[in-house]
Amino acid sequence: MGETKAFEALTPDTLPQRLGSLPALKDRIGADTTQWRVREVGDGNLNLVFIVDGGAGSAIVKQALPYVRLVGESWPLPLKRTFFEYHALVREGERAPGMVPQIFHFDAGQAIIVMEFLSPHIILRRALIEGQQLPKIGRDLGLFAARTLFRGSDFAMEARKRKEDLALFADNVELCDITENLVFSDPYYEAKLNHHTSPQLDGLVAELRADRDLKVEAQKLKHLFATRAETLLHGDLHTGSVMVTPQDTRVIDSEFAFYGPIAFDVGMMLANFWMSYFSQRGHEANGSRDAMRAYLLGVVEEIWATFRDEFSHLWRTERSGILYQRALFEDRDDALGAEQALDHVLHDIWVDLLGFAGVEIHRRILGLAHNADFETIGDVELRSRCEASALKFGRHLAVNRRHIHSLVEVHGLAQRLEKETVI
Amino acid sequence: MGETKAFEALTPDTLPQRLGSLPALKDRIGADTTQWRVREVGDGNLNLVFIVDGGAGSAIVKQALPYVRLVGESWPLPLKRTFFEYHALVREGERAPGMVPQIFHFDAGQAIIVMEFLSPHIILRRALIEGQQLPKIGRDLGLFAARTLFRGSDFAMEARKRKEDLALFADNVELCDITENLVFSDPYYEAKLNHHTSPQLDGLVAELRADRDLKVEAQKLKHLFATRAETLLHGDLHTGSVMVTPQDTRVIDSEFAFYGPIAFDVGMMLANFWMSYFSQRGHEANGSRDAMRAYLLGVVEEIWATFRDEFSHLWRTERSGILYQRALFEDRDDALGAEQALDHVLHDIWVDLLGFAGVEIHRRILGLAHNADFETIGDVELRSRCEASALKFGRHLAVNRRHIHSLVEVHGLAQRLEKETVI
Repeated sequence: MGETKAFEALTPDTLPQRLGSLPALKDRIGADTTQWRVREVGDGNLNLVFIVDGGAGSAIVKQALPYVRLVGESWPLPLKRTFFEYHALVREGERAPGMVPQIFHFDAGQAIIVMEFLSPHIILRRALIEGQQLPKIGRDLGLFAARTLFRGSDFAMEARKRKEDLALFADNVELCDITENLVFSDPYYEAKLNHHTSPQLDGLVAELRADRDLKVEAQKLKHLFATRAETLLHGDLHTGSVMVTPQDTRVIDSEFAFYGPIAFDVGMMLANFWMSYFSQRGHEANGSRDAMRAYLLGVVEEIWATFRDEFSHLWRTERSGILYQRALFEDRDDALGAEQALDHVLHDIWVDLLGFAGVEIHRRILGLAHNADFETIGDVELRSRCEASALKFGRHLAVNRRHIHSLVEVHGLAQRLEKETVI
Repeated sequence: MGETKAFEALTPDTLPQRLGSLPALKDRIGADTTQWRVREVGDGNLNLVFIVDGGAGSAIVKQALPYVRLVGESWPLPLKRTFFEYHALVREGERAPGMVPQIFHFDAGQAIIVMEFLSPHIILRRALIEGQQLPKIGRDLGLFAARTLFRGSDFAMEARKRKEDLALFADNVELCDITENLVFSDPYYEAKLNHHTSPQLDGLVAELRADRDLKVEAQKLKHLFATRAETLLHGDLHTGSVMVTPQDTRVIDSEFAFYGPIAFDVGMMLANFWMSYFSQRGHEANGSRDAMRAYLLGVVEEIWATFRDEFSHLWRTERSGILYQRALFEDRDDALGAEQALDHVLHDIWVDLLGFAGVEIHRRILGLAHNADFETIGDVELRSRCEASALKFGRHLAVNRRHIHSLVEVHGLAQRLEKETVI
């Protein structure tokens, strides 16, 4: 750690003086700090984010605050989350090269990561709200998920290293706690920080909170999340954690990283595309979003197909860990045994990702942290209609996940619910 | 740790001089070390075990060796396993009071635990081989499993403490590695250290090793074992890890402790009673073991019924962790929701324990570490017949575990297989 000075939040004014002597920064953006222009642009729920333009180049300076930015100092949150973000970024960069920002500097004590300024990238969620159809995200995100999740698991890693890493990330308690509460529990009872579009959704919300099968299923998914230490997850892989251009896709904001079930990252990602799908009707002021809706379901299909293909490829070529060892299958002339196991593993991921997607949709409409997809719909009636369809969709996925065979059924349901107007 | 002297294995000769000044020992057994009588009695696979009789009392001194005793110095094994044994014993003692030996002293550097000498206790496995019907073990072991496994999980523990503890035990890599290899993989291919009753079992062994469904299932169970960090397991809960009198039951040898699936401990325990059942025909020289066989199946039924009852009781009274929170059920007038979740949780434990039991039976007949139940049958033909029935039974459980409803079917199968004579 090395850093002994007390934590102090950066400001646009103090940043040049405090970070001006860092070679990692001045060598890249220009050494004359009087020329530096600093803007605070953080729009997330947790941290400070600065763009520093030094004349010769730009960089991002991200700093954690000792509390949840969205809520304020009443909700303390430890600075060590930057430590986990840094370590997760390093691993993601190794496992899915080119898909995370480059890191220039890390200061654990001040909870600062200095990293590549991605330009002209914008947040994927924003692009989708604007109706942009990005051609590469389906494939890129499918690859990112398959590569990081496979390569961080006992399918590929040396068991000793994985267990060491598991112990390292087990200390990311507070951010796990946020997910455990905000995703899996709070939406299903009258927790203090919840809010929803009211009174329009009141009836449906009461119905969902009285829905025993849904509550039990949400808790079974929480049980899986909290105890299935299968791989290093990103932990917050939604469309607000992805920056894009038509040619490039980068995943950011990995401070929720910890060892959990493979299906969690994949399910959360698909859920956010599905929410975008259900929100499109709220963004049709300048014309129909029919093509955008079709595009979004196509992206989901491409993510899942790419994920399966790449996961299967890695299964066949990089399965060097302690699980499903080649010694038992390929090396004994039973490659088909390994294929059988692969089908089982992918089946379990599929069943669980549907569940994780369902609760992720619920928490973004019923819980504390909502999505801009819905929040930017000014017409409250229209918004509540979009949200209601998404809530019903999420409930169906979570409760019936063991009996849904493919995206054909899922998208048939999505289309029917999206067209319904009655809450 | 405090201890800086290099590790040195105790001997009966050096023990009094080396440990004679420990108040924990001399105050209990007598301070005059010239009176101490020391016997090495370790019959396990890993460690040295001494009984020290000091005139005024006795104690057990257990010391790890830096290698696997069963194999020799060619298989190094770190001394830190004593650290995990100690910490697991402490937790077991808190969670299931009175069911583990009392600890008098712990020396991490010399890998020594000084503990209560249990007398007139004998190893449960030995008692069962002798045909003893102990009246209390079914209930005691059911209670031990339910209490340690429930209270060490996210059902009951504070999440932060559980994650800290998970990180602590994640370092018990080498002993997990033994289980991962010896239980789940080695039995299913021609691994170097394997042995089985040959040539009698050769055909059946070849059949099992060519059995694709079995191999895939064994690996799925390994996947569960390695990644489902649900509770602090004993990790080696077989009948050789239990000391008994007709009135008292104590669980020892917890050095394999780590966070894994609840079903593992329960499944391994039942497997060892089932192996005892299948071995009885090899011990009928002095009379029929019909009554013993009925007794053993009864013990299994009592363990499982007690486990379910106690687990359900703790679910209703001590469910204070982050999973299946009362806020969602009882506190919202939906106690039946919590009962529904309990049924699901117990169902999953049942399905998985059958699988773990199946592979445990296989590894004790096909792998490195066999059981005295079978090994003490001098007549090789008779032994191989007993083992063959057990192997077939294990295969059935592992592969069909999702479709077996209750112990009625399991014990019907056991009885049919036990009577078959043809391998």
